[in-house]
Amino acid sequence: MNGAESLIRTLAGNGVDVCFANPGTSEMHFVAALDRVDGMRCILALFEGVATGAADGYGRMLDRPASTLLHLGPGLANGLSNLHNAIRAYSPIVNIIGDHATYHRHHDAPLTSDIEGTARPFSHWVRTSSSADMVAADGAAAIAAARAAPGCIASLILPGDVAWNDLRNPLPDGIAKMPMDLPRPRAPDAAVDTAARLLRSGERTAIILAGLGTREKTLETAGRIAEKTGAVLYVPSLSPRVASGAGRVPVTRIPYALALAIETFSEIKNIILIGGKAPVAFFAYPGSPSECYQPGTRIFTLARVDEDISYALEALAHAVDAERTTAPVSKFSIPVRPEGDITPEKIGLLIAATLPESAIVVDESVSTGRNFVTVAQTAPPHDWLLPTGGSIGYAMPVAVGAAVACPDRKVICLESDGSGMYMPQTLWTQAREGLNILTLIFANRKYQILHNEMTNVGVSNVGPKASALIDIDRPVIDWLSLARTFGIEAFRAETMDELSRFMDAGLVIQGPCLIEIVM
Amino acid sequence: MNGAESLIRTLAGNGVDVCFANPGTSEMHFVAALDRVDGMRCILALFEGVATGAADGYGRMLDRPASTLLHLGPGLANGLSNLHNAIRAYSPIVNIIGDHATYHRHHDAPLTSDIEGTARPFSHWVRTSSSADMVAADGAAAIAAARAAPGCIASLILPGDVAWNDLRNPLPDGIAKMPMDLPRPRAPDAAVDTAARLLRSGERTAIILAGLGTREKTLETAGRIAEKTGAVLYVPSLSPRVASGAGRVPVTRIPYALALAIETFSEIKNIILIGGKAPVAFFAYPGSPSECYQPGTRIFTLARVDEDISYALEALAHAVDAERTTAPVSKFSIPVRPEGDITPEKIGLLIAATLPESAIVVDESVSTGRNFVTVAQTAPPHDWLLPTGGSIGYAMPVAVGAAVACPDRKVICLESDGSGMYMPQTLWTQAREGLNILTLIFANRKYQILHNEMTNVGVSNVGPKASALIDIDRPVIDWLSLARTFGIEAFRAETMDELSRFMDAGLVIQGPCLIEIVM
Repeated sequence: MNGAESLIRTLAGNGVDVCFANPGTSEMHFVAALDRVDGMRCILALFEGVATGAADGYGRMLDRPASTLLHLGPGLANGLSNLHNAIRAYSPIVNIIGDHATYHRHHDAPLTSDIEGTARPFSHWVRTSSSADMVAADGAAAIAAARAAPGCIASLILPGDVAWNDLRNPLPDGIAKMPMDLPRPRAPDAAVDTAARLLRSGERTAIILAGLGTREKTLETAGRIAEKTGAVLYVPSLSPRVASGAGRVPVTRIPYALALAIETFSEIKNIILIGGKAPVAFFAYPGSPSECYQPGTRIFTLARVDEDISYALEALAHAVDAERTTAPVSKFSIPVRPEGDITPEKIGLLIAATLPESAIVVDESVSTGRNFVTVAQTAPPHDWLLPTGGSIGYAMPVAVGAAVACPDRKVICLESDGSGMYMPQTLWTQAREGLNILTLIFANRKYQILHNEMTNVGVSNVGPKASALIDIDRPVIDWLSLARTFGIEAFRAETMDELSRFMDAGLVIQGPCLIEIVM
Repeated sequence: MNGAESLIRTLAGNGVDVCFANPGTSEMHFVAALDRVDGMRCILALFEGVATGAADGYGRMLDRPASTLLHLGPGLANGLSNLHNAIRAYSPIVNIIGDHATYHRHHDAPLTSDIEGTARPFSHWVRTSSSADMVAADGAAAIAAARAAPGCIASLILPGDVAWNDLRNPLPDGIAKMPMDLPRPRAPDAAVDTAARLLRSGERTAIILAGLGTREKTLETAGRIAEKTGAVLYVPSLSPRVASGAGRVPVTRIPYALALAIETFSEIKNIILIGGKAPVAFFAYPGSPSECYQPGTRIFTLARVDEDISYALEALAHAVDAERTTAPVSKFSIPVRPEGDITPEKIGLLIAATLPESAIVVDESVSTGRNFVTVAQTAPPHDWLLPTGGSIGYAMPVAVGAAVACPDRKVICLESDGSGMYMPQTLWTQAREGLNILTLIFANRKYQILHNEMTNVGVSNVGPKASALIDIDRPVIDWLSLARTFGIEAFRAETMDELSRFMDAGLVIQGPCLIEIVM
């Protein structure tokens, strides 16, 4: 048994049985070993950001890590931006990064670089395995690190000779084990009492739910607390995964726009944080504050993101006597399908009218779709995923991972023409794996958000040079041709009627499909 | 005058007058200032790797830096893999990376990350500017760092408030200056004497030319030395820019394949290094040595890459009395255009038969085109660029930068279907700027190099799971559709006759064009 085989056995033996891969020469022993070990599904990506983004989507949906397979420093580098989103989504991921053989590194061959230094800003745990006999233990440690609360990024560097050398003392089944999934810390009674006192104070109080606090059960508990005490429930502007739709407790997304966010908290005296942080501006703007809340607002952390959020909510419900309260939930209703010209508002209504039960919505609609998640609260129950780290180009890769994780659920990918151009080769993997993903492209042919932000940062006159950096209409991007590049069924909608028909078609297709929506 | 304007004035005032940009909110003041300052040309990329790769190509052709404009940590991260190639090409680049306002960073908003830590593994110089009054000096320091021998990567982080604040004490013209382009160290006489003694020893001696040693004039000097002394001239497998073609001194590329490289140096007793390092394997392979040369070979460094390579060669020519020797040069001849089925050998001949004078060839043909540069030595004079760091996806972006740097020269981009899928959105920038680039896609529908490497690493039986990670034929990538996505003229060649006709057409078109070559 060689190191690669021992590592794959340990990954699969500890439940890491999917690998999103873009391998090169230094990973060939890992690749070859896949045919000698059962239980690892490998999915090829044509670019490393597709692999890391897919691992993020997989982790968000299953709360356990997939692995990636990346080619030395540059391969890792191409995957970093989606790891940034994954860190902020608390997604568990095990990165396997190939490297030169240990004895070859000092020769400084062309692909040599500081892999540990590259991984560190985007990883919670980094280790270079030193020998074939150690690599199973290193792999188990990486999995344990990735599964540590709240969900972490572990990067294991695998030198070529560590992969290809035979083990001198193999474990009986080649699988190393580690203690995993240690209990999360629980909020002390005094903290629960403090939060309860704030809720009973008569002052206007907000509860912000983040991390695992936005799942169906925790929302339900929070809904009881709010119903009993008059608190208002919020989720961050960019949550990893919010349970939404009819029958679930509706929550308000903190607005991305700073002025609206400040208005949201203008009357709030206390903010109780459960799994998250006090709300701050996404960006700073000249003359505006960084905080979205008023000076003097009391900020109280009941549970950090790595603590036991379910426990904290249940304990708080008990303390405020909300155990038998009924939480109000969203009612099911189907909006009338809008007709005529296409507008963002009408698209939101059409999505609400067509969203299938258990859909997973991966939302990178940026400026077009700020309101979609709210409008869709009357649709059948679904999950809504957002770009937690603000790194652009996340949606198509994350949709891949969500579709692999949940093959029985439809994935709706809300993408913009600007952000969709970061990782367009993702469509190839969607086609190859026949993934059940409907992608909507909101083609407004500009970085609309940057038009808005120009105003926000205080620039009133946008000159021709600046315009040329925020408009992407020369040349117009032909998304039908892009989809055809990868053999994916595609439609172009220029009216709501067309969009309505294409949505019906796209939702029926059991595989990838793309609709370009000309705005 | 605000910080952004002061920085742009300093960049343009020090000759950094092209910026390859993919900006976001934190860069909006820089973008807005472009319309208030003359002399900066900004070129939009839809992905950051396009911007950094373009800056690499620009630096290789002009030996002076362009700048990039990148959006916080994730934007920088997307540009790192092409910076890796740029480092190994000794390309000067000034990266401008936007960041949150200084007072906003501690709030840990979603896009916050360790930008300095991310830049450091791929930069020679990293600094975060601290105030609007300092940013011009910081910019000048970045340019000086980028222009330092042998050509370096400087990364300047620009917080939002540093860009938008007005200067309290602006410089008269807003332009900071720094001492730049200090003289390069010269080889001492004793070193020149040692090299001359080796050349006169009667032992078989190789001269390896790298860095600036592969330009026309230095090759000519090296050619005289070789003619006089019987030394053999080599360039690394992956040089940043080799002057090639008829009328120039022909040099041999050290083979990528380790067995061939070892054979190349099997009789060599002395290796004189000028601007480079002793030849080592690109990757380590089980049971093979790392060095391409025999044990006991004398390795002598006459000039490091950051030293004065022209001086070292001239001094050596003087020492071996080769000042009036005539260097043998490649003869001009046009091969007969091959017919029939497409093979790599025939493509090489057709390229040699059609290459226009002064063409810039950006070569990422990987396994298909190992011999092209040699075959084309009888074509009109041209420059040949290779992926110096081995990071895949470099060719289309580098072609952009070369075409911007040299608008009067035709750029031929030799791309493979595997490597071309890393940054396909580069074609949009080619179309937008009307760049004079002919792209050939060698569509063998697999990672052929990985098929080869499987054998090299000792794997004889490639199983179905491994095959699925090195074949990219499901789905077939339709490159004509991809080109049409961006409004680029494109052809598909399935015979040499078709390829011959399409090459003629593509060379006439004054703008981007793509030919998919089905292998």
